Amino acid sequence: MLDGPDGCGKSSQARLLIDWLQGQGVPSVGFRDPGATVIGEKIREILLSPAHEAMTTPAEVLLYMAARVQLWAEKIKPALREGQCVVLDRWLSSTCAYQGYAGAFGMKKVIEIAQDSLERVWPDLTIILDVDLQTAAQRLKRELDRMEQKGDGYHSRVREGFLKLAEGRPDFAVVDATGSVEATHREIVTILQRRL
Amino acid sequence: MLDGPDGCGKSSQARLLIDWLQGQGVPSVGFRDPGATVIGEKIREILLSPAHEAMTTPAEVLLYMAARVQLWAEKIKPALREGQCVVLDRWLSSTCAYQGYAGAFGMKKVIEIAQDSLERVWPDLTIILDVDLQTAAQRLKRELDRMEQKGDGYHSRVREGFLKLAEGRPDFAVVDATGSVEATHREIVTILQRRL
Repeated sequence: MLDGPDGCGKSSQARLLIDWLQGQGVPSVGFRDPGATVIGEKIREILLSPAHEAMTTPAEVLLYMAARVQLWAEKIKPALREGQCVVLDRWLSSTCAYQGYAGAFGMKKVIEIAQDSLERVWPDLTIILDVDLQTAAQRLKRELDRMEQKGDGYHSRVREGFLKLAEGRPDFAVVDATGSVEATHREIVTILQRRL
Repeated sequence: MLDGPDGCGKSSQARLLIDWLQGQGVPSVGFRDPGATVIGEKIREILLSPAHEAMTTPAEVLLYMAARVQLWAEKIKPALREGQCVVLDRWLSSTCAYQGYAGAFGMKKVIEIAQDSLERVWPDLTIILDVDLQTAAQRLKRELDRMEQKGDGYHSRVREGFLKLAEGRPDFAVVDATGSVEATHREIVTILQRRL
């Protein structure tokens, strides 16, 4: 699973990774979280609409988690059952870093809610693509969604949150994603070959 | 707060109760849950659309709770601060009875998620309007939403769930709501006068 701050390059890396896995003969499929189901895409719209500035952090946590449990049941679980490798663009680590840490909801409470609602909480491997704020901002040269608009203070805490979450966890890896797309891809592949 | 199975007459009773409270000089306001906020009404649409038959019970729990925390922050908390009496049409007891009990998610897990996400979990007083399936069905002579369509087995477990939840709790009262609207209203008022 690939995660990291907005502008870290997750989506491009997810596509490259799926291509590489398929090239290795590993049947693979990718999903973005929140999204990938009819219900999840509607939840995503509510979450990201800049009109919803009144949304509280607890509501964010619960909406992200709702899209996630639906994605698990409708797409991920069936794909794993078929023996596919599932590459995710965001997962629980995002809710931990954004709402849990940057939004001060508490990472512990985010994980408790996940344990109460998700059949499977953590992926086999979570790769955090780490970038500084400046690099991230340069890559996000487009209209920003509600989460992306939250400002530098929030986004630097998001980055900190990801790094704190990854600390000392053997199922997490942090990759410096400030370099070229190709260099980052190569590092992700190296980690995968070593860990899985 | 008024709660109970679909067709128990909650919404009519909520209106009558607010009128009665205001008649007594108690500033009062009513909200329906899920709903009453822009975000909550959008979540309500996702929850109740008959097109969303793929929705899992954990997703229902999280979506109901998301609408609820938003309703708390945007409407209920400010109203209580102003000294208003808040009359709710559904609250956490619904998620306990529907998803927790009838949907087999577990009432305990529903309450844990509420404790992790809601600043205030239970109202001062929860009045359950109890009706049998037949009476409820006669009152719901209109197009049914996704939850209402779940069938008799589900809805008789919902009723059971409400009664189990109310058992032995001093902040709950169960009212027989099979009689006339006026008789039920009088009983609600009597309970209120006795308890508050």
